Amino acid sequence: MDTQLKSALIEQLLYDAPVNRPLIARILQNAQNQPVQPPKSRETLARLIDHTLLRSEATAQQVRAVCEEAREHGFAAVCIAPCYVEQAATWLKDAEVAVCTVVGFPTGANYPSLKALEAGLAVRDGATEIDMVINIGWLKSGRYRLVERDVRSVVDASDCLGGKNVKVKAILETALLTDEEIIIGSLISEYAGADYIKTSTGFAARGATPSDIALIRCTVEAETGIKASGGIKTFEQADILVRHGATRIGTSRSTTLIRA
Amino acid sequence: MDTQLKSALIEQLLYDAPVNRPLIARILQNAQNQPVQPPKSRETLARLIDHTLLRSEATAQQVRAVCEEAREHGFAAVCIAPCYVEQAATWLKDAEVAVCTVVGFPTGANYPSLKALEAGLAVRDGATEIDMVINIGWLKSGRYRLVERDVRSVVDASDCLGGKNVKVKAILETALLTDEEIIIGSLISEYAGADYIKTSTGFAARGATPSDIALIRCTVEAETGIKASGGIKTFEQADILVRHGATRIGTSRSTTLIRA
Repeated sequence: MDTQLKSALIEQLLYDAPVNRPLIARILQNAQNQPVQPPKSRETLARLIDHTLLRSEATAQQVRAVCEEAREHGFAAVCIAPCYVEQAATWLKDAEVAVCTVVGFPTGANYPSLKALEAGLAVRDGATEIDMVINIGWLKSGRYRLVERDVRSVVDASDCLGGKNVKVKAILETALLTDEEIIIGSLISEYAGADYIKTSTGFAARGATPSDIALIRCTVEAETGIKASGGIKTFEQADILVRHGATRIGTSRSTTLIRA
Repeated sequence: MDTQLKSALIEQLLYDAPVNRPLIARILQNAQNQPVQPPKSRETLARLIDHTLLRSEATAQQVRAVCEEAREHGFAAVCIAPCYVEQAATWLKDAEVAVCTVVGFPTGANYPSLKALEAGLAVRDGATEIDMVINIGWLKSGRYRLVERDVRSVVDASDCLGGKNVKVKAILETALLTDEEIIIGSLISEYAGADYIKTSTGFAARGATPSDIALIRCTVEAETGIKASGGIKTFEQADILVRHGATRIGTSRSTTLIRA
């Protein structure tokens, strides 16, 4: 997307101007016409996986098993609850697997300052990837400046404690959003410093779809990552999401998924 | 339950002694033999309702409507996300409706210090009831001292900022627990200072059942409250939970429920 037009759109949004619908329509059209990339190999896909265990009842022992699997298969990261970050970082000390955790998860409806502290504690304990849920209610009611400040509070806390090493992913929960809200949520999150846009928490009615991914891909810059997540169970599902522009896959079925 | 036996059980749990199975079995038997109370009126029930809106996409406008409904019908409280506490407290300034919010919601799998701060911010902003999710994974792996410390951190923060006015409810998420874990979770939460034991977040496969309530009722003291929540849609459902010992009902269907 044209950078100048995009900047204009973001500034309009942040200063409570009416949404520039023709510009939104153009992004939507681009997304529909976006070419789909060729299929990937299982090896390529493995390196894009955030091996995930976020169930409330997960035990330390189960988190440890997830860490071992991630190391064995060369997954990009483990994605685990804040209360296990310190242990996971120890278990993955010498591995090339990032420790990723979640912030404001999965509702996103808490204090920006609290999300910042949660990210800060996690980075202190060894997390280098922070998946934060944006404030969905604020996005839906057009409180875009608050949405921006919320994402930025997490980016700032993460950068402050972890420097450029820490990647922040902004979770939109696309299942709850219109196409227009997906575009606006992506633009604001990217502007606020998020390194990735992530589609889903896994707690909503559905997860990532190829059209969600194409839409985000046509909205954000090429250097901004996209993490597809929520209900991804098979290699074919993961592959089609990557072919539409996802650069990371969040799933708990990682080992099944990469098995031929 | 015999107070001395109960104290002994809690101390055993906190000092990593094996679980006292005969004592657990006795509580279970009491629960099965517990008499069911007579039916309640709709008016009685209304005063026990925490009128709830915790969906991620809830807007300020929707929260405001919930506050107005609670005032109109004389519900006990509104139960809303942390990011709306300050506004809800303003809207309910002169009403006899408590502002209740959630902490560590709905996974419970984050830092105890963060839960404490979340509770503290909410109390500062006018919440007088704090529904916190216990650390379910720690409970399931027998890390009882950590479970206790986690609940106590929220109780301490709430008391410190709000004094005796603030009520803390410990959410167990009974759908994920065995009967033994429900008993242990209730005992530890009560010992840590929780004023209520709450069954569910509404995010699990099921909500409160009459047998969950009876079990908690036979575990905790008569002064400790019990909040039944999760999937409560009708008056009959709510009534049977109250007749088994619930003293608060969490539901988003409050207005339908009290209509004759």
